[in-house]
Parts: sequence; structure tokens; C-alpha cells
Amino acid sequence: MIIVMRQNATPDEINHLCEKVKEMGLTPQVSRGVERTVIGVIGEEDKIRIKPLEAFPGVESVMEILRPYKLASRDFQAEPTEFEMPHGVKVGGKKIVVMAGPCTVESRESLLNTAAVVKKEGASFLRGGAFKPRTSPYSFQGLGEEGLKYLREAADQYHLCVVTEVMDTRMVEMVAKYADMLQVGARNMQNYDLLKECGISKKPILLKRGMSATIKELLLSAEYILSKGNFKVMVCERGIRTFETATRNTLDINAVPVIKKETHLPVLVDPSHGTGKWEYVTAIARAGVAAGCDGIMVEVHLNPEDAVSDGEQSLIPRQFESMMGQLKAIAHAIGREV
Amino acid sequence: MIIVMRQNATPDEINHLCEKVKEMGLTPQVSRGVERTVIGVIGEEDKIRIKPLEAFPGVESVMEILRPYKLASRDFQAEPTEFEMPHGVKVGGKKIVVMAGPCTVESRESLLNTAAVVKKEGASFLRGGAFKPRTSPYSFQGLGEEGLKYLREAADQYHLCVVTEVMDTRMVEMVAKYADMLQVGARNMQNYDLLKECGISKKPILLKRGMSATIKELLLSAEYILSKGNFKVMVCERGIRTFETATRNTLDINAVPVIKKETHLPVLVDPSHGTGKWEYVTAIARAGVAAGCDGIMVEVHLNPEDAVSDGEQSLIPRQFESMMGQLKAIAHAIGREV
Amino acid sequence: MIIVMRQNATPDEINHLCEKVKEMGLTPQVSRGVERTVIGVIGEEDKIRIKPLEAFPGVESVMEILRPYKLASRDFQAEPTEFEMPHGVKVGGKKIVVMAGPCTVESRESLLNTAAVVKKEGASFLRGGAFKPRTSPYSFQGLGEEGLKYLREAADQYHLCVVTEVMDTRMVEMVAKYADMLQVGARNMQNYDLLKECGISKKPILLKRGMSATIKELLLSAEYILSKGNFKVMVCERGIRTFETATRNTLDINAVPVIKKETHLPVLVDPSHGTGKWEYVTAIARAGVAAGCDGIMVEVHLNPEDAVSDGEQSLIPRQFESMMGQLKAIAHAIGREV
Amino acid sequence: MIIVMRQNATPDEINHLCEKVKEMGLTPQVSRGVERTVIGVIGEEDKIRIKPLEAFPGVESVMEILRPYKLASRDFQAEPTEFEMPHGVKVGGKKIVVMAGPCTVESRESLLNTAAVVKKEGASFLRGGAFKPRTSPYSFQGLGEEGLKYLREAADQYHLCVVTEVMDTRMVEMVAKYADMLQVGARNMQNYDLLKECGISKKPILLKRGMSATIKELLLSAEYILSKGNFKVMVCERGIRTFETATRNTLDINAVPVIKKETHLPVLVDPSHGTGKWEYVTAIARAGVAAGCDGIMVEVHLNPEDAVSDGEQSLIPRQFESMMGQLKAIAHAIGREV
Repeated sequence: MIIVMRQNATPDEINHLCEKVKEMGLTPQVSRGVERTVIGVIGEEDKIRIKPLEAFPGVESVMEILRPYKLASRDFQAEPTEFEMPHGVKVGGKKIVVMAGPCTVESRESLLNTAAVVKKEGASFLRGGAFKPRTSPYSFQGLGEEGLKYLREAADQYHLCVVTEVMDTRMVEMVAKYADMLQVGARNMQNYDLLKECGISKKPILLKRGMSATIKELLLSAEYILSKGNFKVMVCERGIRTFETATRNTLDINAVPVIKKETHLPVLVDPSHGTGKWEYVTAIARAGVAAGCDGIMVEVHLNPEDAVSDGEQSLIPRQFESMMGQLKAIAHAIGREV
Repeated sequence: MIIVMRQNATPDEINHLCEKVKEMGLTPQVSRGVERTVIGVIGEEDKIRIKPLEAFPGVESVMEILRPYKLASRDFQAEPTEFEMPHGVKVGGKKIVVMAGPCTVESRESLLNTAAVVKKEGASFLRGGAFKPRTSPYSFQGLGEEGLKYLREAADQYHLCVVTEVMDTRMVEMVAKYADMLQVGARNMQNYDLLKECGISKKPILLKRGMSATIKELLLSAEYILSKGNFKVMVCERGIRTFETATRNTLDINAVPVIKKETHLPVLVDPSHGTGKWEYVTAIARAGVAAGCDGIMVEVHLNPEDAVSDGEQSLIPRQFESMMGQLKAIAHAIGREV
Repeated sequence: MIIVMRQNATPDEINHLCEKVKEMGLTPQVSRGVERTVIGVIGEEDKIRIKPLEAFPGVESVMEILRPYKLASRDFQAEPTEFEMPHGVKVGGKKIVVMAGPCTVESRESLLNTAAVVKKEGASFLRGGAFKPRTSPYSFQGLGEEGLKYLREAADQYHLCVVTEVMDTRMVEMVAKYADMLQVGARNMQNYDLLKECGISKKPILLKRGMSATIKELLLSAEYILSKGNFKVMVCERGIRTFETATRNTLDINAVPVIKKETHLPVLVDPSHGTGKWEYVTAIARAGVAAGCDGIMVEVHLNPEDAVSDGEQSLIPRQFESMMGQLKAIAHAIGREV
Repeated sequence: MIIVMRQNATPDEINHLCEKVKEMGLTPQVSRGVERTVIGVIGEEDKIRIKPLEAFPGVESVMEILRPYKLASRDFQAEPTEFEMPHGVKVGGKKIVVMAGPCTVESRESLLNTAAVVKKEGASFLRGGAFKPRTSPYSFQGLGEEGLKYLREAADQYHLCVVTEVMDTRMVEMVAKYADMLQVGARNMQNYDLLKECGISKKPILLKRGMSATIKELLLSAEYILSKGNFKVMVCERGIRTFETATRNTLDINAVPVIKKETHLPVLVDPSHGTGKWEYVTAIARAGVAAGCDGIMVEVHLNPEDAVSDGEQSLIPRQFESMMGQLKAIAHAIGREV
């Protein structure tokens, strides 16, 4: 940690700070520059983070040196995390996983048909929401437990894994009965009680980046789960909020190599939410694979006109098939598989 | 709702859309322009919102005409909402309420002393966190129920109302036993299960705007609470996330007159989180009052050096006293009171 | 154009607006909905754009239907633009062009050596700045005309095209003497006098997206050039400004398919500025090609430690060679060439 | 400057960096922490800024300690800048200046009438555009020199100062013949050649913040003008671009106290562009004064329906009069004048 003093900081103020640093078992190192005095703090940075150093008299600013996440960092584990799912599926390996299905589980029949389609084209996870976070209280909120049952049945029939969202701490246990992977949605990325419950549950977790969360904050949220002893975590780039309105969100493609460098956790790309329009989904899925992601999540619907949500960003089976062919070619070009 | 067709949309595509609109009990009105055909939809717009119109063949874009929130809008209730709290405090009236106290409840003694200070200078609410949403799992997470007891005791002794955050659906009932107003924090603005529980609780609610939430989304989150029959809701502008890093957040001062125009709900301004630095808090509190807000929330700490969180944005008693004097003068200048 | 009236708009206000619309030779079409009256305007939308309709009494909001750019749109020209450069280079065709070279032209010798490297690996343009827009007045501002001479010499020797930035209207003619393509930088994307001069010059133009410009604004700036009769325009996605600080900018990969859909103009991707760090450049160049761009621009430096600018985002020859190999494989996978 | 090394940086890499630092006449100071080695650089930081330190092997990140602007900083000049204009007007003093007038100069007669109104209510500057930066090439681009003549005539008749925009380096001399203060618009904030010409001209300059410029970048642009020996510079907060679409821009009210702390230059607030809607202008002008600005710039039009631009954000005379009354009361409350 580096503490920059104001130009007019007094020797007393500098001494006072150094005393406090020493009281915490750390070592202050004072550098007197031409215009500013700077104090370096040597030792375990965590000890001092709880102190609001900018509140001290004479302090201008404070800069962190170390990453605030530990277990999620490459410093802690250099090798990429790889974990096994049912049906021989591996997350984080050479093969890029594809998660596909409707935004919302709508009916048993349509879900079974969709599962057949996505399995045939090579997906290994069936996605679909049973509990839906909706901006408006007047929008359809999901089928609830009934939807989970349909997911389980369709996945079992087609040898797929189930990934589905959990929104409330009280529901973690119940959703975990049906799902193979629990999804924490973008709006709940900083719902810390939910993260803790997901950590305790020991189920594989898919953690989506919040709409305005930095990569650092995403990894700190992952750290909440890891710190409860659950290391089966995949993080997901699904678009951030910017000033651009031509697309629903701005998919932060830079996040893929940054996350791969910063953490050992596998990273998923969601081009459906990342663009919000079906006509851009395939191009951005290709970009995600080319950038080095470990998985792609797309919305697929048999008849988007009748979708209760997100129809405008869903692929129809023919488009999904075409996308899968392109992803295979690109994965092959960079030495991976889809 | 206005549906804009693509330039090359066929008559069949247009007819197909019109049929669907009629099936929902609404009336399509087709305008053939020079370059585009546009379909206006007349009737209750809510009926059609569930249909993903952009997924229909030939559709280029869809524009909403009506506000998606109903109970929160000035169309529903033209007069500003005013509600009563204990100790004769009114929220939403001529008098601008001031909520003050530490970021986090740290000890019984310091809280009692802080309560004495803020009461003396004219605050009517004591604020303080017992459950804290922290970005890092390694930061102090709050005293829990013990902190709530201290808040209640200090508030009772100094005839103040208690406002404090609730983070988890499972805690709403318990927090409501101690608090006069429940705060939903920025990170939980779209935690819909929590909003529903807050609506059911019937306690006055302080709903903070999410870091990257639009004003429309803020009011839709308020709608979740209102739609459960709880109309005692105050919304809070606390700074949004932008590219500017000179301050912790960018306080969206425009939001004050926009919210006052769009909704009848009272609006609070939080210059502590809105700036993140104590030296800017007073100027921005003045701006909030001048812009027309109904309340100010500020962090006050007896000794910010020792604060366990947010010390860098806390006022000391002397600064709080100075701020209150300035706010009174500005409130008076615009025909209100602090 | 759609005009939405306020809920309490009077018949007089509606009539007044309709009269004004008719005065301009356009046809108003009034739809009276349940909660709002909406006026559609039929005719050439441009005629009415100069009127500030939101200033009329009773008006709540105004929505555009048509794209404000004409010559740049796919409505105007459905086929992609392709244009020829010296040395048989084509921009906008099946082959994806690569532009490479130092951020700043530093010396004749280093430029000649860099040109040799980038030509050998398959680049067709030599890039390099002779006039540099620098945030600080104390940073190196470029070699000026001397730098242009070096660029011309190095390009001629290795059969490359020269692309270089022009910052000032007074310099367009001079830069055009040396360069094959004039670059308008991000900071000047809305320097309209400069755009007009670029249009008049008839040289091929590379127009970079401004840091906070929407795609619509980018295409309107292109329209300035096109409207002067110069159709040899390539637009460039080089990263936008967001809240994320892990990278210098956020490369908006969505912009690639959006621009390809909206306009016939070719699109370039600049992963050097888009990420700001050399270690992410290759991954993002791959993503750009996979997303469908028509060209890649990268900074290459023989010895980044000694670069006078942007060393931290420059590839060294070995990294450039590796990137080119990967781009070729991906281009091949999607039916194109590098 | 602080250089943070990667965790696995070798002693050779550290030595190599220290050697380079010494070669530049600076002193490296190495701190070996538990997880990272950090190198502090002591001496004139400017010397090393031209070196791309992040390109050196083993370097993880580089942090600046000092502000990159010098002449604009409070370190250079502690006292606020105050400068005199014609008609006894002072900028930067106790009295807050008001600049008012139409967005665009439209005709001699309407400008004379507007000048009479704004003078009567207490404005000291007449604003109006003769050269207009318009997003679309098909929008009205201004009356040019004819408009400048009208501005001069109207200002002379009513003893007002003229502030008007200059967009092109070739026009600085001509505009300076008519105007008392030259405005550099938001889109040209980083048009460095224009900034240099404004510095050379020695006319008072109004520098508007770019739509996505940080405060640091704004002050660096001011530094371009100051470094040419022109110290009569006022900077202007006019709203930044964020995700919020309820207003045209997001006025960054925090910028007022931040700028007042960072620089001695006076700061103007423009609530017309900052909100984009006349109904919010007065509230935000009040907020600007309450936050401590040195001037307000507002658009006033006799008949906004007929304005050729920005009618939706222009006040009519009656609204301007009301606003001025409110600003006077608030200025008085904080010990200043309007």
C-alpha cells in the first residue's frame, strides 16, 4: 500500500501515520520526493485495509498494490481450474462447453423439444429460468419449482447438465436439488448473503458479472464463494452497461483475456445478453471463442415470437446449428474444441 | 407502443403482426411512410409487453410510449407522497429531513455519542449499518442484531428515527423489529425477492438507486414495493458509476428534478456515497437541497481515523454542524426548512 | 417521427402542432390512445428535424424513426463498399487488411526496420504518427513533416500503403501529399471542419470512433465526409470509455456486426488502443477477425522500452508474427483471408 | 512515480529498471514487500513520463504520484484566478457571472431583443453560436461572420460581453475580432491545435469539458492554453455522457468542488446542456450555485418553438427571470452574489 501525503503535510502528520502503521504490525517506509512525501507500507496489506487512511490528516490519496482477492488469483493457483460435471462434461478444459436453452422455462413439451435440438448440435448444458428476475413486477416471474422439474426431466432424457438461476437465499437448497450448476445472475452479483449460501452449498456455481461491476469486483464476489470452500466456480461475461444504445449491453470482450490472466477460474461468454439481438449473437459467440473463453451460453427458442421473455435475442434451431458449425471451426483454428 | 418495420418488410409480415396485436385485444394502426411502415398499438400497453415483438419477422425496432411503472407515477397520483414517522417526523413535506450517523455501528458508546451530536444539530434520523454489504469477504461484515439494539437504544434516548439496511429476505422481519425505516442498498436494488418482502412488511422503505440503474429502473423497483400495498417509500440518489475516477461515484444531481417530475415519492440525496470524500460532502449536500430534494443522508463519525468503514467520507461533528447551518440557509432561500 | 403528447395535452396544443407539421409540407397522423395521444409525422423526416419539437407546449417526447445518416446507410447502398489502394491492396474485400507500425514515427532507421518486419509478416499498410494528439502539452508532439517523409520512404521501399493521422484543417493538404490514407483520430471524430476538409481532399479516410461516441454518431461523422463526395471511408472501432479500468478502453466488439449491418462502409478493429496492454492485443485481434471486421490495426515496435509513446501496448516482431499466424487460421475458418 | 513489479520479477529485471531510472537523472528506491517489489522514483516525474515503463520486462503496473498539470494546479497558484472583462465584469470573484442567450444566432432582430432581456435580468455575457458543431451535416451550421457581427452589435448596445464558439484553427483570429471570450466546445476539448491557437490569441477562453473527459483531462487541456502564456481561462462543466437517458447528459455536480480544489481557474456550470430539458434547467442552475461555481451559462430564447437548435432546453424570458431571482437568493445564502 502506498500513501501519498498532501504537499503541505506536516512532519507531525507524517509521524502520526507512521505510528499507526507500526501499531498494526506493519513497516512504514518514507520517501521524501521533490513535491510530495510518499509512505510505503510493507507487510500484510489486508491488516491495514480496514483503516480509512484517507481520513487521516495530511493524506492526499492511498493506492493499493496487491490484488484484494486471494483464492481467486493466479498468485494463489497458477494452473487453470478444471472441474467435472455429470455425463462426463468437463468445465475449464480443452473443450469449450456450450450452454443453451430458452430464457424462461415455459412448458414441459417445448423444453423437451429444445433439449433435443441443443443436444443434437453439441451443447452439454441445458439452460432455462424457473425463477426470473424481471425489471417490472408485472412481468412473468417464472414457473418456480415446476419449471425446475421440467429442466431436470429434459436434461436427464438428453444427457445434459442443468444450469439455472437462484435468486433468493431461501431457495438455494431447493434449486440445488434439481440443478447441476447454480447461476447467480448479474443483478445479484453483489448479493453477498446469496453468494455465501452458494459457497456453502458446494454445487458448481456460475457467477455472472454485474452490469456495472468491474472485473476486480467480479473476482471479489467469486472470492465470497471460494472462501466458503467451494472452488467449482465459473465466471461469466454477459455485457456491461455503457452509453451505447445500439445493443442491449456492451459485451466486454477484453474481459476474456483479462480474466484468464487474473484468475484460474474458467470464463463463460453470453452473447445473447451481451448483444440483446439475435442477429448479432453468432458473430459475438465467434469472437468469444476466438478471444479464449471456456464456454458459451446462448438462448435458443423454437419459436421466438411466442417466447415469454427475451425472444428478440433467441436463436432458432437453424441459427443455433449454423452457429455451432462456425464455433467448431474457430475453436479448431486455435487448438481447442467445441 | 410503436412498432417500426424494416424497409423491406413484406405485406405478409405486416399483416401477421397486426393479427397478433388484435388477438391480444388491442388495435393496430398502420402508417405507411416514405421509407418505413410504422404500426401504432392502441389499448393497454401492458398486454403486449410480454410479447417479444422484435423477434417477429420484418420488425426493426419497438418503442414504448407509456411509462412501465404505474403506482409510482405522477399519472397515478399527482400530489407528492407525505408520510409520518415516529417523533412527529414527516417525510416528503416542507421540511427536509436529515439522516446522519456512522457508516457502520461500531460500539454502543460511540453510537450514543454520535446520536447526541446529530440530534443537537437537527437531524431526525439516526443511520448506521448493522449488516454491511462489503465488496471483499475479508472486510468487517457488521455487528448484526447487537448493532440493531444499539441503534434502537441510541435513537430512543435522543428521540430519533432509525434507518438501517436489510440485505437478506430472511432478515426483514428481524430488522423491522428494531428499525423505523428499512434501507434497501444500491447493490440490492434489483434483488426482487427482497423488494417483495419489504413491500409485505409495510414498514417505511428507503430504496437506494443502484450504481448503474436508470431512473426508470429505480422507479420500477419502487413499483415492486408499492404493488404489495406499501406506499411509504422514499427513493435515494447516491451516485452512479461513470468513467470519472476523481470521486467514488458521480452524484446524478439531474435525478432530483427528474424524479420529482416522474413520481410522487420523496427523494433523498446521499452526498457521502455520492462523492466518497469528506471534503466534497458539504458542497454536494447544498446542491441537493438547492435542486429540490426532500432529505439528505450523511455519514458522521466522531473520529474517522478509527472508523471501520468509509472514514474517508465521514464528517466530524464540527463539519456536520457547519453543513447544517449552510443547508438551513439554502432551504430558507427556496422556501423550505431543514 | 413520432410525437408523444403529455397526458394532459389540450386539443388546442395538439391542433397547434398539427398545423406546424402541415406548414412544413408533411402529414400529421393523430392516434388517440387510452392514456396518451401520439402524432405520427409522414413525409421526409429531415424537413422537421430542425424544429425543436420538444419545446412545443403539450409535448412529452419525440422519437425518430429513420436513421439520420443517409449515404452511409445500407438503405442507400446495400452492397459493401470496396475500394482500391496502391500496390493492389483492396479495402473492404474478402482479404482482411492489416495496418501495423509504431505509435509514433521516431527515426528513419527504426521505421525502415519496422516496415521490413510488418511487410514480411503480411501487413499491407504502414502506420505511424507524425502529428500526435497528446493529452499533456509536455509530451512529445511528433516529428511533423519529417516524419511523413520517413513514412513515405519506408512504405515505398517495402510496397506498403501509408496511413497516418491529420489533426488540423491547415495540414490536410500537406499530409495528403505523403499519405495514402488519412486518419482522423478519436479525439477529432466530431471536429467537423476537419471532416469536411477530408471529404474535399478525396483521399481514402480512416475515421476512428470517438471515445464516447455512439455508433450512430460515428456514422454521422462518416456522413460529413461522404456528403462532400468522398466515398472511400473506413470506420474504426478502437475502444470506448467505460467504468472498467483493467484495460485502457473497452473494445466494443458488438460494434463490428452492428456497423456491418448499418452501413456498407468497411470496418477496422484496433486492439492496441482497444486494450492498452500488449498482452491482450493478440486475443482481441483474433476476436475482431472472428466477429467479421475488414481490417486490423496494431502497434508494432522493435524495442517497446524505448518507444516515445504507447510502448506498453506495442507488440514486438516475434509477437506480431505469432498474431499474424493466428489471424490467418481464424480468417480461414470463416471463409476469409488475412 | 511508483513502479509495481510482477510477483515473479527477477533481480535482473529490477536492476535493469533501476539503471534506466538513474540514466534519466532520477533516484530509484526499492521496497521489497512480502508479495511484490515496488520501486519508487524520486525526482522530477516529468522526465520519466515519456518512457513506457509498462513495456519493461517484469513490470506489472505504474502509478503516478504527481498531477500531470502544473500551471493549472493549486500547487502552482494557491489563490483563485480572477480576471477582468469589458464593462467592469470580473470572472472568478465574489459575483457569479451569468452568460445567457440563444443556442444559435438566428437574426439581428431576435438577438437584440434577447440581449435586452438577459441584460435586464442581470446577465453580464451574451452567448450565441455563429459557427455551430452539428452532429449531422444536414443541420444548420450557423450564420458565420454575419452572426458574429450581430453578437457584437447587440452586446455593445446593452453593455454585455460576447462569448462565442470557435471551432477551427483558421477562424481564431477572425472570431477574436468580435468576441470578448472564445469558447472551445466539448467536442473540441482535445483538439490540441485549436487549444494552442487559443493560447496564442491571449483572449479570455471558456473551455468546455468533453462529454467523456475526466477532470484531469480537462485540466490538461487547460494546461495547453496556459502553457502558451494565456492565463485567462475559465473551465465549464456541461454534463458528461453516462448510461442514463432520462436527460441529455448527466451534469457532474461533483466536478464543481473537485475543480475548485484542484485548480485556481474559475468554473462555469451549463445546466442547459447538462440536462437538455428546459424544465430541469432552473433546479440545476440552483444546484450549481449552491455547489460553489463561479458562473452559470443558460440558453434563453424568445420563442423556443422557432429556435433552429436546442429549443427544448431554452428558457423563455419569464422562466429566465424566475431563475435569476432564485439564484440571487441562493448566492446570498452562501455569501456570494449573482
